[in-house]
Amino acid sequence: MIVVLKKGCPKDEVERLTGWIEHFHVSVNPIVGEETTILGLVGDTSAVDKDTLMLNQWVDRVMKVQEPFKLANRQMHPENTVVDINGVKVGGNKLVVMAGPCSVESEPQICEIAAEVQRQGAAILRGGAWKPRSSPYSFQGMKAQGLELLCKAKEKTGLPIVTEITNPAHIELFEGKVDCYQVGARNMQNFELLKELGKTRTPVLLKRGFANTLEEFLMSAEYIMAGGNEQVILCERGIRTYETYTRNTLDISAVPALKRLSHLPVVVDPSHAAGIYWMVEPLAMSAIAAGADGLIIEVHNDPAHALSDGAQSLTYEHFARTMGKIRAVAGAIGREI
Amino acid sequence: MIVVLKKGCPKDEVERLTGWIEHFHVSVNPIVGEETTILGLVGDTSAVDKDTLMLNQWVDRVMKVQEPFKLANRQMHPENTVVDINGVKVGGNKLVVMAGPCSVESEPQICEIAAEVQRQGAAILRGGAWKPRSSPYSFQGMKAQGLELLCKAKEKTGLPIVTEITNPAHIELFEGKVDCYQVGARNMQNFELLKELGKTRTPVLLKRGFANTLEEFLMSAEYIMAGGNEQVILCERGIRTYETYTRNTLDISAVPALKRLSHLPVVVDPSHAAGIYWMVEPLAMSAIAAGADGLIIEVHNDPAHALSDGAQSLTYEHFARTMGKIRAVAGAIGREI
Amino acid sequence: MIVVLKKGCPKDEVERLTGWIEHFHVSVNPIVGEETTILGLVGDTSAVDKDTLMLNQWVDRVMKVQEPFKLANRQMHPENTVVDINGVKVGGNKLVVMAGPCSVESEPQICEIAAEVQRQGAAILRGGAWKPRSSPYSFQGMKAQGLELLCKAKEKTGLPIVTEITNPAHIELFEGKVDCYQVGARNMQNFELLKELGKTRTPVLLKRGFANTLEEFLMSAEYIMAGGNEQVILCERGIRTYETYTRNTLDISAVPALKRLSHLPVVVDPSHAAGIYWMVEPLAMSAIAAGADGLIIEVHNDPAHALSDGAQSLTYEHFARTMGKIRAVAGAIGREI
Amino acid sequence: MIVVLKKGCPKDEVERLTGWIEHFHVSVNPIVGEETTILGLVGDTSAVDKDTLMLNQWVDRVMKVQEPFKLANRQMHPENTVVDINGVKVGGNKLVVMAGPCSVESEPQICEIAAEVQRQGAAILRGGAWKPRSSPYSFQGMKAQGLELLCKAKEKTGLPIVTEITNPAHIELFEGKVDCYQVGARNMQNFELLKELGKTRTPVLLKRGFANTLEEFLMSAEYIMAGGNEQVILCERGIRTYETYTRNTLDISAVPALKRLSHLPVVVDPSHAAGIYWMVEPLAMSAIAAGADGLIIEVHNDPAHALSDGAQSLTYEHFARTMGKIRAVAGAIGREI
Repeated sequence: MIVVLKKGCPKDEVERLTGWIEHFHVSVNPIVGEETTILGLVGDTSAVDKDTLMLNQWVDRVMKVQEPFKLANRQMHPENTVVDINGVKVGGNKLVVMAGPCSVESEPQICEIAAEVQRQGAAILRGGAWKPRSSPYSFQGMKAQGLELLCKAKEKTGLPIVTEITNPAHIELFEGKVDCYQVGARNMQNFELLKELGKTRTPVLLKRGFANTLEEFLMSAEYIMAGGNEQVILCERGIRTYETYTRNTLDISAVPALKRLSHLPVVVDPSHAAGIYWMVEPLAMSAIAAGADGLIIEVHNDPAHALSDGAQSLTYEHFARTMGKIRAVAGAIGREI
Repeated sequence: MIVVLKKGCPKDEVERLTGWIEHFHVSVNPIVGEETTILGLVGDTSAVDKDTLMLNQWVDRVMKVQEPFKLANRQMHPENTVVDINGVKVGGNKLVVMAGPCSVESEPQICEIAAEVQRQGAAILRGGAWKPRSSPYSFQGMKAQGLELLCKAKEKTGLPIVTEITNPAHIELFEGKVDCYQVGARNMQNFELLKELGKTRTPVLLKRGFANTLEEFLMSAEYIMAGGNEQVILCERGIRTYETYTRNTLDISAVPALKRLSHLPVVVDPSHAAGIYWMVEPLAMSAIAAGADGLIIEVHNDPAHALSDGAQSLTYEHFARTMGKIRAVAGAIGREI
Repeated sequence: MIVVLKKGCPKDEVERLTGWIEHFHVSVNPIVGEETTILGLVGDTSAVDKDTLMLNQWVDRVMKVQEPFKLANRQMHPENTVVDINGVKVGGNKLVVMAGPCSVESEPQICEIAAEVQRQGAAILRGGAWKPRSSPYSFQGMKAQGLELLCKAKEKTGLPIVTEITNPAHIELFEGKVDCYQVGARNMQNFELLKELGKTRTPVLLKRGFANTLEEFLMSAEYIMAGGNEQVILCERGIRTYETYTRNTLDISAVPALKRLSHLPVVVDPSHAAGIYWMVEPLAMSAIAAGADGLIIEVHNDPAHALSDGAQSLTYEHFARTMGKIRAVAGAIGREI
Repeated sequence: MIVVLKKGCPKDEVERLTGWIEHFHVSVNPIVGEETTILGLVGDTSAVDKDTLMLNQWVDRVMKVQEPFKLANRQMHPENTVVDINGVKVGGNKLVVMAGPCSVESEPQICEIAAEVQRQGAAILRGGAWKPRSSPYSFQGMKAQGLELLCKAKEKTGLPIVTEITNPAHIELFEGKVDCYQVGARNMQNFELLKELGKTRTPVLLKRGFANTLEEFLMSAEYIMAGGNEQVILCERGIRTYETYTRNTLDISAVPALKRLSHLPVVVDPSHAAGIYWMVEPLAMSAIAAGADGLIIEVHNDPAHALSDGAQSLTYEHFARTMGKIRAVAGAIGREI
């Protein structure tokens, strides 16, 4: 940690401040410049509060030198983490495609889609049972019944399932059924939920909040990991910007950035980033080219009658074509699906 | 709802689409232009999904004409709603200042601060018991014990209390103790929490998410109101932008905008918007000048040793001075505190 | 300047890097921590390029300690600068209102508006002759003829004029006629224009670019000042954010921030920030309460037939009412108009 | 154009408004709903000002139905435009890589780099002579001398050159020497410059402003095309968002979006988007996978001593490796370099 003092800070004030900081068992190295004095703090500075330092009238700026995330940090764990979702490995050389409808709507719907995405090469089935929607008047998902239907589709196809959880009270119901929890963008900083998921040993697909920084994203992964659950997959799904042509702006740079900052697997959701079906394919291809470990894609048997997110769902035909293109890009960079 | 068709859409396709829409008991008025045909939908269009329409290959754009929030909409309720927090009216001519520390830290701390902010004119005591923090390693609040201490401060001073709730499972514990629930920015779209709060009859101070639009903000108020609890106070607390000089960018335009769109009271949190103490006063003054119904301000007996948010907390002396300035501005616009 | 090295940086590499930096006549103070070594650079670091340092494989981060603007910096010039626009002082205790139409449209129009805004208390006449418009097909202003009409309005009323300049080649034509140049938001980083304006001795009203930081804003002021023209007025006019309800988001925090960072006067343009007439009044009031030194407001004799920006222009009646409210707020904070 | 009236708008007011609109030779189709009346405007609505309509007290909203850009619009010109830069075709099946240093620094430097990037497969040489910099104290480029050196490098290698122009007054000097003008992000809405470039017949590489929408971007292309110069190449180079890990956020969705909206070629600048060298390669690969027609990449013989933008420049070795990866991705999607 670096503490920059204001111009003209008197010597006894520097000493007083140094003494205060040393109470935290941190050693202080002053650098006396012509215009500015800087204090370099060495040791475990986690107990020294940046905000509190800022209150000292002679403190001009405080800069953190170390990243605040530890367990998620690649510096602490240089090799890639591979998360095992009931036999499917995410984070290795093989790319993983998770596909399925936005919402589970009926048994035939989810079973048919599951079989179809499996045929095209998807390794995991996605589908929403509890749906967080901006409007209280929109379809909110089939809830517990939807969860049962996902389990039926899993039984028939063998595909592990990933589905969203929105309430810590639901864990009891999900546990043992779901192969991977999904935490949606709106709940990325629902710390009560993250802490409870940290107590399970089931993998968690953590979506980046639509206006959260990469550091905040990794701190949310840290919440889960600090509880003892290190099976976390990071998912970039687009951020909110001034541009309104797309629903969100896919932050493609997040892929190489997260791979560098962390050892956790990184997947991309081109469906929510784009918000419109025709853009899913190019975004999926670009995500693979940028180094993503997998994709989560919305596919529907009849998008025009989907109960939610129809506009961004792919038809079977379009999904098949997209898988072909993804495979070609994967091959070009020495990976496979 | 307006459906804009693509150039060259064949006549029989217009008819087919019209027929499909009419199944939703909505009447369709085509406007045939030289380049574009537009369908104007009249009636209750809530069942017609915008996204589904977008899937038709001849549909170019779909535009909503009505705001999606109903209960929160001023059009449905022209006069101002006045929320009653245990005798303190928010939304009338009198401005309400809610003040107190970021976190409850001890009985003497909260009781002393309560007495002091009351002496300066605050009508409600704020203080956090459960603290959502970006890092799992930061102080997370005194929790249930903090809630008890707030109740003691309330007993001594008579000030109603407002405190943050982060988990629907805590309502049982809070109910009967807390005079006003606070929903933090990070939980603005925690719909599970909002739905549960909608079942209570206790006022809710709903903070705007740091990257949510005004429409999303009002839709979250709608979630609470749709459950039967119409005692909602809207709180602008700064949004996330590219500018990093301030922690957040106070969206001062949100004050007149929300007053126009909705009948609910609007308060401003200058402390979180600024993130730094010296900016709280000018932002508080500007909020009152822009038409806010009140303020929520962090005050601490010893900011330099606060367990959280010290940098943005006001000292007693600074708070007293700020109250004086706010009173002057309030007087200039015909309001009082 | 602070250079943070990566964990495990070998000692000879630290020495090599130290040697390289010392070539720039800067002294280097190493702080050797357990995990990280930090180099504190003391002296004139302006020649040490941050980007170049980043290329060294052992450098993790480089942090600037000093603000890059010098002439615009309050630290170098603690007292407020008062800019004199042909006798009207901007930056003193008296607030200055600049008012007039978006575009000059005809002699009677500009002369009538000038007389009217003067009667209501405006001290400077604004009006556009060259209009930068997003579309090549929109009205582009009356250009040289518009400039002549502004001069006529000035002759009749005695009001100094401020008008936008968009091309360095126009300075010759403007010089001697215009009392204050306006640099629009889109040209805030048109450095060729700024450099030429720095050679004049006429005041410049510099608008903040709609996506520029405060630091970039002050660096653009620095461009003008570095040329020898220190008569710069900063104008906050709203920034681009994800929120679309208002045309721009007025960054009210910029007012106290700029006053703290710089000695230059700060004015606010509530018309462009809001983009809609009914929001101009509350934003104008909040700007004064936040500490602005003045306002620039669009007023039109017949907004419904304005050739540009009609939607955000005030009628005479509305302007008169707004001036009354601004006066009240100004009085409450001990300033006058 | 669609005009939505407020609830309760009286019939004679609808008629009055209809009459006013018809003066613009536009026909008006009213759709009378139970709650809302909507006016559908048919014909050439370019003369009907949206803002002016908003001033009518009964008008609630005005929505544009058609895109405001004409010449740049794919609807008007379905096949791809291929721009010819002195023999090098941009926009066809073959991808074009433009490479070179940020700034021209000396004759040996630019000639050596030109030869090297040519050997690796670049088809066009980039290099800055006039450098717009945020600080007046930074290196501003070699200017006219830099232009001469670019011409020497072109003579030796035969590579066409692209370089930035920042002042309309420089066109005379550039014309006949430069094969493609570059308009930088900060000048995307420098309309005076765009209009002058519209009068030339030399190709223009137009960079997207760092906070401009796709519509504004295409309107700036329209400015150039409206002058008669249809040789415009669009360049996505990252936008400004709240995320600070990268210098800018590469808006990868802009590639498929621009290809759909317009017939103009689209290239990507991964160097400025990333701001740091190690991220250039994955972003370049993702851009090609998303459908870009080419790339513009900064390459330097000695990045650690570059006079500008060293941190994001590739070494020869790194550039060679990146070209190999780009070629592989290009092959996977049926394109070549």
